[in-house]
Amino acid sequence: MGSSEKTILVTGGAGFIGTHTVVQLLNDGYRVSIIDNLDNSVIEAVHRVKDLVGPELSQKLDFNLGDLRNRDDLGKLFSKTKFDAVIHFAGLKAVAESVVYGQPEKIPCVEDFELKAMNPYGRTKLFLEEIARDIQKAEPDWSIILLRYFNPVGAHESGKIGEDPKGIPNNLMPYIQQVAVGRLPELNVYGHDYPTKDGSAVRDYIHVMDLADGHIAAVRKLFSSENIGCIAYNLGTGSGTSVLEMVAAFEKASGKKIPIKLCPRRPGDATAVYASTEKAQKELGWKAKYGIAEMCKDQWKWASNNPWGYQSKP
Amino acid sequence: MGSSEKTILVTGGAGFIGTHTVVQLLNDGYRVSIIDNLDNSVIEAVHRVKDLVGPELSQKLDFNLGDLRNRDDLGKLFSKTKFDAVIHFAGLKAVAESVVYGQPEKIPCVEDFELKAMNPYGRTKLFLEEIARDIQKAEPDWSIILLRYFNPVGAHESGKIGEDPKGIPNNLMPYIQQVAVGRLPELNVYGHDYPTKDGSAVRDYIHVMDLADGHIAAVRKLFSSENIGCIAYNLGTGSGTSVLEMVAAFEKASGKKIPIKLCPRRPGDATAVYASTEKAQKELGWKAKYGIAEMCKDQWKWASNNPWGYQSKP
Repeated sequence: MGSSEKTILVTGGAGFIGTHTVVQLLNDGYRVSIIDNLDNSVIEAVHRVKDLVGPELSQKLDFNLGDLRNRDDLGKLFSKTKFDAVIHFAGLKAVAESVVYGQPEKIPCVEDFELKAMNPYGRTKLFLEEIARDIQKAEPDWSIILLRYFNPVGAHESGKIGEDPKGIPNNLMPYIQQVAVGRLPELNVYGHDYPTKDGSAVRDYIHVMDLADGHIAAVRKLFSSENIGCIAYNLGTGSGTSVLEMVAAFEKASGKKIPIKLCPRRPGDATAVYASTEKAQKELGWKAKYGIAEMCKDQWKWASNNPWGYQSKP
Repeated sequence: MGSSEKTILVTGGAGFIGTHTVVQLLNDGYRVSIIDNLDNSVIEAVHRVKDLVGPELSQKLDFNLGDLRNRDDLGKLFSKTKFDAVIHFAGLKAVAESVVYGQPEKIPCVEDFELKAMNPYGRTKLFLEEIARDIQKAEPDWSIILLRYFNPVGAHESGKIGEDPKGIPNNLMPYIQQVAVGRLPELNVYGHDYPTKDGSAVRDYIHVMDLADGHIAAVRKLFSSENIGCIAYNLGTGSGTSVLEMVAAFEKASGKKIPIKLCPRRPGDATAVYASTEKAQKELGWKAKYGIAEMCKDQWKWASNNPWGYQSKP
């Protein structure tokens, strides 16, 4: 059965990573159903997705306003459509860091490192992994892939969809972007005395389109393998970028000056975190293609076309 | 303010440990509200509690049929009554072992050992501890005591309330009890070649009335201390009893022969687990009073008075 006959349920499909993944799923020939409560996303994002893929592929996209935590909403959804796989994005993100390796003892982080959450949001990710493992153990017919994201940035090259956080952004790139378009005055750089090349903290940033393709590769693996059990893969680039390097790259891509303010380290922030990408490359046949120049270029295209995100200027 | 003016919300208050704790709370002068969905308990248990404490104290007990997971049920409860503390028992118990230290590297288990869940139910306990710690960190006004039970057995000395599991019991004592009253033919003893005194596995059994008193001590600590943060205490006796020792003690207390069948070890079962009780004794001023003779005597009184639990013979 080709991907054209398969239907994927995408929870939280109106969000940042959701929209980009839905675009790539549709481009790859899948039918897609979204369920999203729009708590932290807007319907305009789904309109943009349709605009982006065109009228023909849009017919394969079905949006459902609903809440995963509501049994009736799920009942309606599952009685309407038979799904071949689910990609679960829905969640209320609350803190800066989504990576759950914590302050790693060694870098790069390999999948069999013990997970250590540094905050409640990280803990929800860790709990979900453990619950998924338990489900798979109890019902061995399930195949589950756990994707561990590093720091997703950038946007679709069209500039039509991108990250649109509510309020003051928690993450570096949306913050830089809002400084660049004049919504915020300057960027606080937390820590300039880390034992790194330039003293600022080092993270593994990954282009959201690479991340989306990582999901496509994972779905393909689910369909092509007999039964894979429950298995975790890092989705990162495998190389670290410092805050100051990212600021410089963004200034170059945008032609804008990003004023910075050097601040003390924040408690609990790790010095340097980046992924080991070998397992994903070997078993999913997936590898990140984009570097920080493309990340900044596409982030800037989204930002300059949509300085207020999906809203018109308030 | 004396305990007579304080109101305690007890979730799952119709269950095994819930009923015994409610009795002791009422005896200690507290007002008690129960919320229970009766998923795994029966209203007859609450009637027995009232019967046990008498008409005067029964007036201080308020039963609410409702589900903790239902926001409306909670809203109704909290708008009706102002609570001074909550004891949270509600949960769907699913497996034999409720202790979450797993196969401990050393015994006795001290509270600062790393918790290792051996099954999904244990994992829910572990998750709840972490969520409680996060809540307390986010809202430092909260005082939270995490009580880690070992193996609660026995019953109120009146024989009016006790454990009444649905279906085939998972735990040793209800199983022995059902063999003693003729509901089950024999007891399977899993493992007779453990490196213990008699080859059978060793656990820390605690009388449910001791456990109930441990909760009273914890509530008292919450009210008497300024702010204790989030703190864990073991509730166990600190001494280990083997399966075969417990069978012998029950035979002595009941005068019944318990036929046993020696079976292979079950995967994942620990050899010996018992609690370190020092911290609870020092900081809660609480220590278990009853030994296995009383546990078996009271278990048998409950069993012989109520061979079919809270039901009449089906």
